[in-house]
Amino acid sequence: MADTLINPRDLAFLLYEVLDAEALCGRPRFADHSRETFDAVLDTARGIAEEHLHPHWKKNDSDEPRVEHGKVVIIPEVKAAVQAIAEAGFIAGTKDADVGGMQLPHLIGGASLAWFDSANVATTSYAMLTAGAADLIVKFGSDALRAKYLPPMFEGRFLGTMALTEPDAGSSLSDVRTKAVPAGDGTYHITGTKIWISGGDHELTENIIHLLLARIEGAPQGVKGISLFVVPKRLVGDDGASGASNHVALGGIIHKMGWRGTTSALLNFGEHGPCTGYLVGEANKGLAYMFHMMNDARISVGRSATAMAYTAYRYSLEYARTRKQGRLPGEKDPLKPPVAIIEHADIRRMLLLQKATVEGALHLVLECARLVDDQETAPTDAERTRAGLLLEMLTPIAKTWPSIAGQESISNAMQILGGYGYAREYDVEQLYRANRLNQIHEGTNGIQSLDLLGRKVMMEKGAAYQALVETMLATAADAEPTLPELATSLRAAIGELGTTTTTLVRAMMAEPARALANANAYLDCASRTVVAWLWLRQALVAQRAIATGPSEAERHFYEGKLRAAQYFYRWELVKNAPEHTLLRAIEDTPFSAKDWEF
Amino acid sequence: MADTLINPRDLAFLLYEVLDAEALCGRPRFADHSRETFDAVLDTARGIAEEHLHPHWKKNDSDEPRVEHGKVVIIPEVKAAVQAIAEAGFIAGTKDADVGGMQLPHLIGGASLAWFDSANVATTSYAMLTAGAADLIVKFGSDALRAKYLPPMFEGRFLGTMALTEPDAGSSLSDVRTKAVPAGDGTYHITGTKIWISGGDHELTENIIHLLLARIEGAPQGVKGISLFVVPKRLVGDDGASGASNHVALGGIIHKMGWRGTTSALLNFGEHGPCTGYLVGEANKGLAYMFHMMNDARISVGRSATAMAYTAYRYSLEYARTRKQGRLPGEKDPLKPPVAIIEHADIRRMLLLQKATVEGALHLVLECARLVDDQETAPTDAERTRAGLLLEMLTPIAKTWPSIAGQESISNAMQILGGYGYAREYDVEQLYRANRLNQIHEGTNGIQSLDLLGRKVMMEKGAAYQALVETMLATAADAEPTLPELATSLRAAIGELGTTTTTLVRAMMAEPARALANANAYLDCASRTVVAWLWLRQALVAQRAIATGPSEAERHFYEGKLRAAQYFYRWELVKNAPEHTLLRAIEDTPFSAKDWEF
Repeated sequence: MADTLINPRDLAFLLYEVLDAEALCGRPRFADHSRETFDAVLDTARGIAEEHLHPHWKKNDSDEPRVEHGKVVIIPEVKAAVQAIAEAGFIAGTKDADVGGMQLPHLIGGASLAWFDSANVATTSYAMLTAGAADLIVKFGSDALRAKYLPPMFEGRFLGTMALTEPDAGSSLSDVRTKAVPAGDGTYHITGTKIWISGGDHELTENIIHLLLARIEGAPQGVKGISLFVVPKRLVGDDGASGASNHVALGGIIHKMGWRGTTSALLNFGEHGPCTGYLVGEANKGLAYMFHMMNDARISVGRSATAMAYTAYRYSLEYARTRKQGRLPGEKDPLKPPVAIIEHADIRRMLLLQKATVEGALHLVLECARLVDDQETAPTDAERTRAGLLLEMLTPIAKTWPSIAGQESISNAMQILGGYGYAREYDVEQLYRANRLNQIHEGTNGIQSLDLLGRKVMMEKGAAYQALVETMLATAADAEPTLPELATSLRAAIGELGTTTTTLVRAMMAEPARALANANAYLDCASRTVVAWLWLRQALVAQRAIATGPSEAERHFYEGKLRAAQYFYRWELVKNAPEHTLLRAIEDTPFSAKDWEF
Repeated sequence: MADTLINPRDLAFLLYEVLDAEALCGRPRFADHSRETFDAVLDTARGIAEEHLHPHWKKNDSDEPRVEHGKVVIIPEVKAAVQAIAEAGFIAGTKDADVGGMQLPHLIGGASLAWFDSANVATTSYAMLTAGAADLIVKFGSDALRAKYLPPMFEGRFLGTMALTEPDAGSSLSDVRTKAVPAGDGTYHITGTKIWISGGDHELTENIIHLLLARIEGAPQGVKGISLFVVPKRLVGDDGASGASNHVALGGIIHKMGWRGTTSALLNFGEHGPCTGYLVGEANKGLAYMFHMMNDARISVGRSATAMAYTAYRYSLEYARTRKQGRLPGEKDPLKPPVAIIEHADIRRMLLLQKATVEGALHLVLECARLVDDQETAPTDAERTRAGLLLEMLTPIAKTWPSIAGQESISNAMQILGGYGYAREYDVEQLYRANRLNQIHEGTNGIQSLDLLGRKVMMEKGAAYQALVETMLATAADAEPTLPELATSLRAAIGELGTTTTTLVRAMMAEPARALANANAYLDCASRTVVAWLWLRQALVAQRAIATGPSEAERHFYEGKLRAAQYFYRWELVKNAPEHTLLRAIEDTPFSAKDWEF
């Protein structure tokens, strides 16, 4: 197998040279860790990715899960891989040692998951959904819930899901109608239907633990009346054994365009018998709890998008280096042998576009992971608060930008392969199909846009926005002496974003619906500015490394970073200009369109 | 079934109000036609689309062609639909009456095919590949070839293919290695392998007629040594009956991401026995002949991309009008019922983006069809020459822009449907998978870019380019009094394109490889300028129609045209600016990238 997953050199660059992962070891929580333990974890992750995940990633797509006699049948490789992930400790990777975790920084945990996602996102999902579900129990569950459910979930004996969406509610969680009626013994009877439940049913494990949103009878309408429940597929006895059915019935699985290996189920709760739910935390706080998890989930979406696009880039790069076709302009002799297609200018453009996208996106999602660590473990209150603010701003960007730019990137990988890129016999088309989901799930792009402009920019009187601007300006100042072109461009881009933001914030006071109508374009501009900032940081590190006189191979690596940074500024960041114009004009051609004009 | 194919009102608008199809009836070739016959043809096409093509379009994807015992098995609905198309006369639709055709203008023929493509592009392909293959025989074949092959092809008893690509040659036709050795009786023995042959094998008909490129033994190397042959799957006797195998062996079918209903075959010619080819026209002129057909094929690609995006638009529009979800910003009462999602600003934006794309694209491909008619039948030499020049410029744009913008458009349809858009139970994801092929086949985007900038702009000392610019400027002048914003924008856009073009043409003299390196961006800018021009024409017609005081429904239709035109100018045309900057700088970050930097 060609080495087409994440580039380990790039990962090490980002972790150790850009994000200073080793510095985390100075904090009490990570005191038992060192670069050696981090590398060992990453090597383990890579090994699982290459040995357990990647070999069946195509089979789990072509031979996708199906329902037979009411049960979901999945190829056996999936179970083995999920077990390998669990046994190596990755479901509990970032959790406290005292609940069985490795107490890893999120930065290292996230990098490990990037290995898994790049190899086989569909299989990885079963483990990572479990980690997300367990996280809610860790943070908000009672001791009893923690004791009963966490160990089997961390061990991969039980898998978990997030059961939020309903057929008639979609993105509108305030319309959740699943009902919870007190049973009198502290538990609840759950009735209702959930849809799009990833990992919602299967026979991979003896039990499935659903973290489910429902409305307790008599609760307030809207988002303030939603509670969170643990709802196991099979009731769990005090001995920890899974027993009788809890009446979670499989209504069917949905057949997706891609990401086929992860079942997406319609589930009916309590239709054919009593279904017991166990309240997590307090009543009516479910949405707040879920949003805690959702932020992690959103960064995870960005990471999976990044990983898929990364793999597509590496695959198309390998192809471009080995496939010989055509001759360069000016070569008129048809007897000359064809050149490797990487020699063609347009192929190089498509490769550089991909490199700038995927290496920028990887930085973005790892930056977010680092901020989660800082939010939890930075030495001072002020640093933790600041990290939290930056994270609020970056989360909608980390969720969407890799999914959108990543799709464009994978599309360019496909174009490099030509017909082969379009054939299921090759690897790229599956990545193209799979990654498209990332623009939809865990909050569509539209939802993220409104989150960024309508909530994050406005929160705490603009404190999150200001924190981001100051941080980006500091990088520009740092780079000014040695990378003046990029530093000047970044400063200008931040200034443009500022002018636009001020205009929109004012407009939102007067007419919020109109001011928010172009939030999508705002997200675009903010995303490109942020990724440009990250690229400038990478470029600075690379430039300084070159100055130390590294080996030729290392110099080439760093020169590639400078090349990609320059590409991002000259080819991508410049796309902000027309969108800023639209935004400042609060252009309303779509907003004012009448239903009958379509 | 909801009415989600082409909007017939829009088609009539383009054909009769914008492109003045009726005027064609004044030309001798079309003297037997009238608006009534055109409408009858279009109604027939629509009927076939709705009754024979659309009902099985999903089945022919999920239950795709497969090889069993060496034969290709295809669901039976395909054969019935292809027969319906043939029996209604569409394979020979634009051909001369004396060879059995309807002598339709290409404009009406193209509009008919748009109906088919919007309903089921995969099944339609079998018929349309046959029309293309027959076209080569009509234009370049001997009387004997015409007599033997055309009638069964027009009747749909034989289907046809284009057998160009080889496994090691891809886009590089000059490297074709399939061999033709004179058999001594005027025929040739063909040996070689072709790949990606659409409709390359099946049991839909008693015979398949391959139009194949091969190199006659001893011919010059490169493009000047390629000849065109008719190679039937089974030898055809003088009585017209298909007899013994001609040793065209199926090597396998390729499994594509989308467009699955059309087989894509690997074919081995003459591997297990003699394979006879019949020379079409003169030896060594094959590539020139094929390029004649290729221009039609490229416009067809644009049309199929348009039709798919059109269907996705109409499907998502229907969904947006009926799906209720969420509330408008500012509505705080969770007891208020949810609104139809078309009320949400971001949904309206995504609908308007689609409308501007698909209705602009439909104009573009029909404009090309009209130019084919003008090239062949306009009253004066000067008009025919001018039409030919415009067509040269527009063909690479018509091939690529609908495939790229159309994919973005379909992606927005998917986003409107959310998870449902991503589910195979709904219609959009199949269109997303299918249309992506249009950026690859019949010359990739990269090839089209080089064609536009490297050949078309330069041809006849810039005469084609000048013809386009003059034509667009005339529209701007026409629109100036009543649509000043759009007219001014168009004139500015043409000016910008001119400056960029001049810069690039000069640079090409000095350093062609570098000047051509960003041809992709040039194609983008030229495409947006052209589509803006077309939208201004539509807007002018709409504005004038509104002035006549039409019915309310008609006024709404025309207002939609003005809305979409304004959207295209304010949201899409503005994206040219950063690309012009790159182009004029002859930006070379990708061009200068070193292999080791990736």
